[in-house]
Amino acid sequence: MRVSRLSELKPVILKIGGSVITDKNRELAARTQEMSRLAEEIQKVNAKNLIIVHGGGSFGHPVAQQYAIKEGFKEETQKIGFAETHHIMTVLNGLFMDALIWRNVPAVSITPSSCIITRKGRIQCFEENPLKMLSKMGFLPVTYGDAVFDSDLGFTILSGDQLVSYIATKFNAERIIIGVDVDGLYDADPKVEKTAKMFKHLTLAELKALQNKLGESVACDVTGGMSGKIAELMPAIERGIPATIVNATKPNYIYKALKGEKVEATLIEKE
Amino acid sequence: MRVSRLSELKPVILKIGGSVITDKNRELAARTQEMSRLAEEIQKVNAKNLIIVHGGGSFGHPVAQQYAIKEGFKEETQKIGFAETHHIMTVLNGLFMDALIWRNVPAVSITPSSCIITRKGRIQCFEENPLKMLSKMGFLPVTYGDAVFDSDLGFTILSGDQLVSYIATKFNAERIIIGVDVDGLYDADPKVEKTAKMFKHLTLAELKALQNKLGESVACDVTGGMSGKIAELMPAIERGIPATIVNATKPNYIYKALKGEKVEATLIEKE
Repeated sequence: MRVSRLSELKPVILKIGGSVITDKNRELAARTQEMSRLAEEIQKVNAKNLIIVHGGGSFGHPVAQQYAIKEGFKEETQKIGFAETHHIMTVLNGLFMDALIWRNVPAVSITPSSCIITRKGRIQCFEENPLKMLSKMGFLPVTYGDAVFDSDLGFTILSGDQLVSYIATKFNAERIIIGVDVDGLYDADPKVEKTAKMFKHLTLAELKALQNKLGESVACDVTGGMSGKIAELMPAIERGIPATIVNATKPNYIYKALKGEKVEATLIEKE
Repeated sequence: MRVSRLSELKPVILKIGGSVITDKNRELAARTQEMSRLAEEIQKVNAKNLIIVHGGGSFGHPVAQQYAIKEGFKEETQKIGFAETHHIMTVLNGLFMDALIWRNVPAVSITPSSCIITRKGRIQCFEENPLKMLSKMGFLPVTYGDAVFDSDLGFTILSGDQLVSYIATKFNAERIIIGVDVDGLYDADPKVEKTAKMFKHLTLAELKALQNKLGESVACDVTGGMSGKIAELMPAIERGIPATIVNATKPNYIYKALKGEKVEATLIEKE
């Protein structure tokens, strides 16, 4: 068995937003029922080439924000904040892993802070062999946004969205599925503007034009909300990897998206 | 800030045995009160150069044994066993991290399976930068025995004892403290033989002579019990790193050992 030999299957990268598995309005509020339902859908699909990345929601973000972890190490008092941010992300991840393993899904977590160092917030080195081994052997790798070490800043926050794009590009993914708590990508925030229009399909050029507009809406998310997601996705789409933005809070939407069945969503393709 | 620059302080490696923080006679029985007490002792010492490694006790061992994880990948049914073994080790680790962070200790866990690949059970590659960054920045790194990937066997069990010796040697440790549930190293199993005699001091030569005798006692521990510990310790002692075997279940013994104060224990030195 060689570590260097890659699985022949191109992976599908599934992002589960923090807003799906936690209640962003209440600190440390895990939506364990949503986790169970998603675990069931994932188990039912039984995909052999899946890699999951989840966000931090009301676990990671509030404490990271309180201690300004994303901005890097500036004073000693931040250190307990870094420790807490990482710790509660492992707790959130543990709840999701519980839901998967309970359903007999051989899911194994990859801890970003243990194998990734960023530089000015961007992934600089990533010990990929455990992730490769997991994929090759048919496990379900699950990773997540985390507080990580940064060779320039001391530490920072690595978003799940950056991880999605990095892994998709590096492992030449077949496609990306972004599970969020709205039906797709809109021309304005659908939670604020009732007249917001959802896109069914966007090309990279259309997305770029839209990006400037979305940039104006300020999201209360240390990793940038929808506009941050789009910015991270671009390089992967540029490489020809299509991305589907789908509502993961609606039963069976993730199941259908994983199966490649028709589902209400926004599909973004290079051309 | 450069990753490559190492802390000037030589680290002290503290092993907390699985028999200390769990009840080995009952599956998944965490001794959270012992964890609290140990966290308090560690917080009180406030050492700047500490690295902690803990064992699996009744969390890691029973499921690892049930699925023969140490022996490597042989059949599909083991995969859920690997996932479970890793998952419950993260749960045990999480409980200990909780105890430390609750006491304001900036402790950050390092997940072995995310940064280490073994070959035939021995550490082959270890992405050490996160551990180096943690030490250098004055965090308390905490790692543990884990189910890990193996380039030859597919997967296996990496014992906390192998980690202790590897890290001590690699990071040129000042000393090693092994916290167990007996008072030190005996000439027989003190839990079985009441007349067993404890050693106060052993040289490497004396330890080697003893090793053959200890090897005969069969320990119910997938990673080899006391005889496995000794075998793992030898290379570090050979390198001139002294090791103290001390009872971590007795209040303040770990505190005193960390402080360098006099405490009942077995000290093993090269000469």
